[in-house]
Amino acid sequence: MFKDATRSQINKTLTAAHAAFADYKQTTPQQRAAFLRTIATEMEALGDDLIHTAMSETNLPYPRLIGERGRTTGQLRLFADLITEGSWCEAYIDTAQPDRQPLAKPDLRKMLVPIGTVVVFGASNFPFAYSTAGGDTASALAAGCPVVIKAHPAHAATSAMVATAVAKAIKKHKMPKATFQHVFGASQKVGKDLVQHPLTAAVGFTGSFAGGKALFDIANKRPVPIPVFAEMGSVNPVVLLPEIMSQNPDGLAKALAASATLGMGQFCTKPGLIFTQNTEGGKKFAQTLGESMAAVDPQKMLHVGIASAFEQKSTVATCQNGVTLLGKSPKAAETGVGLPQVAVVSGAEFLKNSTLHQEVFGPYALVIQCDSKPQLLEIITHLEGQLTASVFGNDSELVDNQDIIKALENITGRLIFNGVPTGVEVAGAMQHGGPFPASTDGRFGAVGPSAIKRFARPVSFQNCPESLLPDALKTANPLGIWRIVDGVFQK
Amino acid sequence: MFKDATRSQINKTLTAAHAAFADYKQTTPQQRAAFLRTIATEMEALGDDLIHTAMSETNLPYPRLIGERGRTTGQLRLFADLITEGSWCEAYIDTAQPDRQPLAKPDLRKMLVPIGTVVVFGASNFPFAYSTAGGDTASALAAGCPVVIKAHPAHAATSAMVATAVAKAIKKHKMPKATFQHVFGASQKVGKDLVQHPLTAAVGFTGSFAGGKALFDIANKRPVPIPVFAEMGSVNPVVLLPEIMSQNPDGLAKALAASATLGMGQFCTKPGLIFTQNTEGGKKFAQTLGESMAAVDPQKMLHVGIASAFEQKSTVATCQNGVTLLGKSPKAAETGVGLPQVAVVSGAEFLKNSTLHQEVFGPYALVIQCDSKPQLLEIITHLEGQLTASVFGNDSELVDNQDIIKALENITGRLIFNGVPTGVEVAGAMQHGGPFPASTDGRFGAVGPSAIKRFARPVSFQNCPESLLPDALKTANPLGIWRIVDGVFQK
Repeated sequence: MFKDATRSQINKTLTAAHAAFADYKQTTPQQRAAFLRTIATEMEALGDDLIHTAMSETNLPYPRLIGERGRTTGQLRLFADLITEGSWCEAYIDTAQPDRQPLAKPDLRKMLVPIGTVVVFGASNFPFAYSTAGGDTASALAAGCPVVIKAHPAHAATSAMVATAVAKAIKKHKMPKATFQHVFGASQKVGKDLVQHPLTAAVGFTGSFAGGKALFDIANKRPVPIPVFAEMGSVNPVVLLPEIMSQNPDGLAKALAASATLGMGQFCTKPGLIFTQNTEGGKKFAQTLGESMAAVDPQKMLHVGIASAFEQKSTVATCQNGVTLLGKSPKAAETGVGLPQVAVVSGAEFLKNSTLHQEVFGPYALVIQCDSKPQLLEIITHLEGQLTASVFGNDSELVDNQDIIKALENITGRLIFNGVPTGVEVAGAMQHGGPFPASTDGRFGAVGPSAIKRFARPVSFQNCPESLLPDALKTANPLGIWRIVDGVFQK
Repeated sequence: MFKDATRSQINKTLTAAHAAFADYKQTTPQQRAAFLRTIATEMEALGDDLIHTAMSETNLPYPRLIGERGRTTGQLRLFADLITEGSWCEAYIDTAQPDRQPLAKPDLRKMLVPIGTVVVFGASNFPFAYSTAGGDTASALAAGCPVVIKAHPAHAATSAMVATAVAKAIKKHKMPKATFQHVFGASQKVGKDLVQHPLTAAVGFTGSFAGGKALFDIANKRPVPIPVFAEMGSVNPVVLLPEIMSQNPDGLAKALAASATLGMGQFCTKPGLIFTQNTEGGKKFAQTLGESMAAVDPQKMLHVGIASAFEQKSTVATCQNGVTLLGKSPKAAETGVGLPQVAVVSGAEFLKNSTLHQEVFGPYALVIQCDSKPQLLEIITHLEGQLTASVFGNDSELVDNQDIIKALENITGRLIFNGVPTGVEVAGAMQHGGPFPASTDGRFGAVGPSAIKRFARPVSFQNCPESLLPDALKTANPLGIWRIVDGVFQK
């Protein structure tokens, strides 16, 4: 039904996008905001047809998809608000000092401008929020960049439906037709051709480490390298300090079991590693966690490929030296279904075996029982970059364990106190992106308004005549945005 | 005298820097600001000894080096002011809404934190301002990152002297000794070892395309890739529109000759390509430009390697098909001296020959006489990324040539109206960095306060107890910085 795009089709697509860029970048923020809002309403207008299509392709349940569509339309409106408000473009004005000695100071004005066509790869685990009209697309369109989306092959029909909503919004707002284009591609060749095309300016990707790293490498080998914003794997370490553990082992176990199996563990923020100490509380916690995970009703995973990868990876993980299963759903294995499970290992074994540090995508977690605080610190120092890290502790023991907290901060994009990592708030203060390999570039994030910064670059205008300045930089500040003028924040 | 660092020395250096990072990142902005100011005063205290050492190593004249030292100490104080003011860290606060339905909203606070040890490569053409205690070092230290500087071999003694000034400041402010370390390396192996070391977090480089691109490639092939901020070559196109040209061909020629030969053309913003039209004014301009460039007194270049590369590259450029010399200094060739020269070629020949698009580092420029505006537009579209692009025109013809101005904006980091590209203002509104290959990452700049953004990454703190929050994120705003709280800019 959905044919892979050929290289010649990809060339046509990127050429059309580049032509569209010339006009689209000249649209006003208000025009782009209205366009984004219409995408949201057109997506809503697809109604339950869209939800049922996504259900059949992804096995995700109705309420989850209703919620995810709400998040997606919310994101589109958030970026509409952001560019209407306008301060995101980081306008700086340094006025001229013609009489300065020994040299006159020129008039300099700087702002962010869109970088060009962005290629977005749909994510298997977010058929709406990180696919066709998801966060990457919304932030790129908001910045003024055309988007070429490669539909995720596991939900190509869903993607095609969402694309019709965007096409309607383009027509309604008389945007260039190639402002948004949709291509299919089940083979890796399509992705490679898209990233290698000379008119591609940046890439947004959410998915596996193997996939994201491959695109990153291709992009860096181009004659003109381009940024790839790949949000990849994360094991999201959770540290449970002894005092809180001794007080509430069951409550903590239940909260973490729920987080690790939410959406069948198919979130990039699933808590994959749980660090405890070898105490009475720790043992009680492990027991309850095993029971709670085993009691979770197994569900179909996003698609059979993901389910079989989960089966294979969880088997490898639980077969490692010193690893003991704490609990596993007793249900019979069934094609496409993931069986929730949790295992335990000692800190010493964990340190020796890097296989145990790797993400198992799905309803799986590993408890690491540490002998001592120095061992825990050593382990944290050896962990790779993470999207999130969590620490649970009473007020006083958090204060007493700032070395552990600092070590966690060094490896993560988001540090959570007394909370689970799942549930990513879409907010200005959210950082969703961490040091490599959590992301290819931990200086940027994929969630919330700051995601727009990925697709823009600064340009300075020196001694530019007032009439030729972009509105954001005009002396009278017609957009009424926050700017730094001669070093002072003002509106 | 200066021995290349061995791999084992580099390992010790980076290990010490990493240990220093743990303490240095905990210093307050006020402590780091005082440290930066002392580096500036210690650099000034080196007096004329430093200037004479640099003169003997670089052939740069006394007034230029006095000016450059002033710029360097000015930069150190600028970053001290920046972090004292504090808003650079982009603090966001989204307060909790415990009663929100269906899910409670957590307290989220985000700010930029230092990324780790930065390796800085000294630049041959800025022995102070982009070397040992130059812009890269100042911005990294300001952000809270330790610095390892590789001295440029062409001014190793100058670099070693500046390093003593930094060491004195470290001692005075009781900073960790390895906050700043100085290594020598004439061979490429030293650079490679520094960039490959697992504890290196980012790289700052100013120099040739070959050098910067090599470091970029090494960094991307690491198991954990790191950002390389390389500011590389640029030919800085200048477009002269016909009307202004007809009115003032001699004045424009003299201004551009002065800019192209300033500091013997050894600036990354030297105007290398000058686009004119085939008119009477254009011919008069070419004649005066040829005479003016030929009349410039030849000087010794930074070192003999740069002079012989200039001799070779300018010879290759002027031997290309259709290229005619407009003027060249009649002085006899002398070892280490660059002979100012300028050539001319037709737009048609230029389009065919990519050799002519390349930078010739030194006092050389090429005039391109275009047949028509469409030809000029086509040429601009085919130019590579640039640090700067300039356009000269009367008010009305600038308005009539917005297509040319937009095309120039697409390829550059700084767009200059009626001015030469040399003379880079150190200011908030300055962008010094352009699309590849001008820089490896045109989303960042090397000059002015925004340079600090290269060496920091965002971290979100979720539900962090007030006492454990960094000062920048504490509710009472003890630092008094600008923050975005629940979507509103406030102080």
